[in-house]
Amino acid sequence: MSEFRRDYVKERWVILAPHRGERPLQFSEDLKYRPRGNPTSCPFCPGNEGETPPEVFSIPGEEGETGWKVRVVPNKYPIVEGQDGVHWVIIETPDHYATVGTMSREQVLLILKTYRERLLSLKGKFPFALVFKNRGPEGGASLSHPHSQLIALRMVPDAVQRELKVYEGRCPVCLLLEREGKKPNLVLASENFTVLCPSFSAFPFETWILPRKHLLSFEESSDEILEELAEVYRKTMAALDRAVDFPSYNMILRSKPFSVNSDYHWRMEIVPRLTKPAGFEWGAEVPVNIVAPERAAETMRRHLE
Amino acid sequence: MSEFRRDYVKERWVILAPHRGERPLQFSEDLKYRPRGNPTSCPFCPGNEGETPPEVFSIPGEEGETGWKVRVVPNKYPIVEGQDGVHWVIIETPDHYATVGTMSREQVLLILKTYRERLLSLKGKFPFALVFKNRGPEGGASLSHPHSQLIALRMVPDAVQRELKVYEGRCPVCLLLEREGKKPNLVLASENFTVLCPSFSAFPFETWILPRKHLLSFEESSDEILEELAEVYRKTMAALDRAVDFPSYNMILRSKPFSVNSDYHWRMEIVPRLTKPAGFEWGAEVPVNIVAPERAAETMRRHLE
Repeated sequence: MSEFRRDYVKERWVILAPHRGERPLQFSEDLKYRPRGNPTSCPFCPGNEGETPPEVFSIPGEEGETGWKVRVVPNKYPIVEGQDGVHWVIIETPDHYATVGTMSREQVLLILKTYRERLLSLKGKFPFALVFKNRGPEGGASLSHPHSQLIALRMVPDAVQRELKVYEGRCPVCLLLEREGKKPNLVLASENFTVLCPSFSAFPFETWILPRKHLLSFEESSDEILEELAEVYRKTMAALDRAVDFPSYNMILRSKPFSVNSDYHWRMEIVPRLTKPAGFEWGAEVPVNIVAPERAAETMRRHLE
Repeated sequence: MSEFRRDYVKERWVILAPHRGERPLQFSEDLKYRPRGNPTSCPFCPGNEGETPPEVFSIPGEEGETGWKVRVVPNKYPIVEGQDGVHWVIIETPDHYATVGTMSREQVLLILKTYRERLLSLKGKFPFALVFKNRGPEGGASLSHPHSQLIALRMVPDAVQRELKVYEGRCPVCLLLEREGKKPNLVLASENFTVLCPSFSAFPFETWILPRKHLLSFEESSDEILEELAEVYRKTMAALDRAVDFPSYNMILRSKPFSVNSDYHWRMEIVPRLTKPAGFEWGAEVPVNIVAPERAAETMRRHLE
């Protein structure tokens, strides 16, 4: 039987239809991430730096070493440029075969610090910026080397504006933490972060990493908070990769638009792409999720280190 | 260079980025529709009627013939049922290998009459219903035999409610017809219908079939109007299949929600699935289209019979 669940963050209904996936935890191979290419041919691998546009930021290797640990370059085929915005690629590691779940905590921390530095560099220049990551064919990644992206725009998208409101007088994310920051939706909790599969998840194994305090902007995070987040993010991705065998996914880092003096609660949304929206989802904008979020959370918990 | 275009029907920005598709009219084979299965194993083929739930409606064959021309059955794995809604499959033809573009005008007319009859049967019972069609792997079709679907819901989805408003005091679809019902966005025009690729198309070769008059509900259409629409729909699909070599697509038939005493302008949206949304599109809800709608319309016009 199906169940209607209310997404009070995006303000829409979601239909949970677990009977539509006969063996819900078996997803077809072409929805998975498998490394492609190799360090010789990959434009993001060390030694091939000349194949990308000149870098706009990098974290150098240890003293005495050459090379870099994280590198940011303009996208070769930018979605926006100039007055319209910026489109950068964040090359997350020199290692072609790494994933967030297998990286060291130190490397994940450098990625998060790069997100913070790059977002801060855009403040006052553009009203809105989004950090996101595409992994695997269904995630929309054209290159396999671990990378994320940052796009700033000259306007705040309508959907983002719509989210900037209170729900019944409360922050909807604070409400979510209060209601679902425990089993059966909880994946893990640290001092300052809660990881959960929202009851209104639109996609199987959708997982949100939430600061427990009502914090508006990711880029205002302290070093200590990013250190804790690095470990939480790494653990979450490792559990997801074990639970669903390296799914294609998108990670979306939502932070308050720079230009808006409104309330917000920053967060990371990790959305595996294990099912494809079809005519009903596109037409009614009512997602149909074939895996109960409570089952996803329980599976993730079992696969924690 | 990219261009921002305003979708004043869905109220969002769309980014046109034709430089992102190097050879925009070449799409990979796995995004295409190719018939799969065969009449022996297909549950929608004549002779296998026992493999579907009992039919709720059908159009019988000619006098003296046995069999059916169109058949409606409950979906075996319904997204909704009972008080929550209905989920039907409309088997469009006995011919496993047909497509709308290769069917006779008479067969397409029977499909449209079935949509009308089934929608009318739900009026007063549910507030909202959506007819849609998934073709090909990227369209989300699990069976290859030509079919469409109808889902009624016990509520009007939020996104549909948001669309029920005027734009600058006007019907946004009437405005679209006035602004783009001619070249370069026009595909074809008949006495009562205009087919065009909206300047703010979210996806390559997105094509809308619009009644030129401000009509609220598809299901109130007369026989004469459906006869004209059958020919327009058939011609449009034939041109699309020739222009892009049988793409995966979704068709969404939008009609005024039954329960709402608001204004609306019914229409058919045909949305090929030739590119996949990734982190930016999911996160910002700003579609990125790599084929200029004006180029798509020109290509479609060249491929009309």
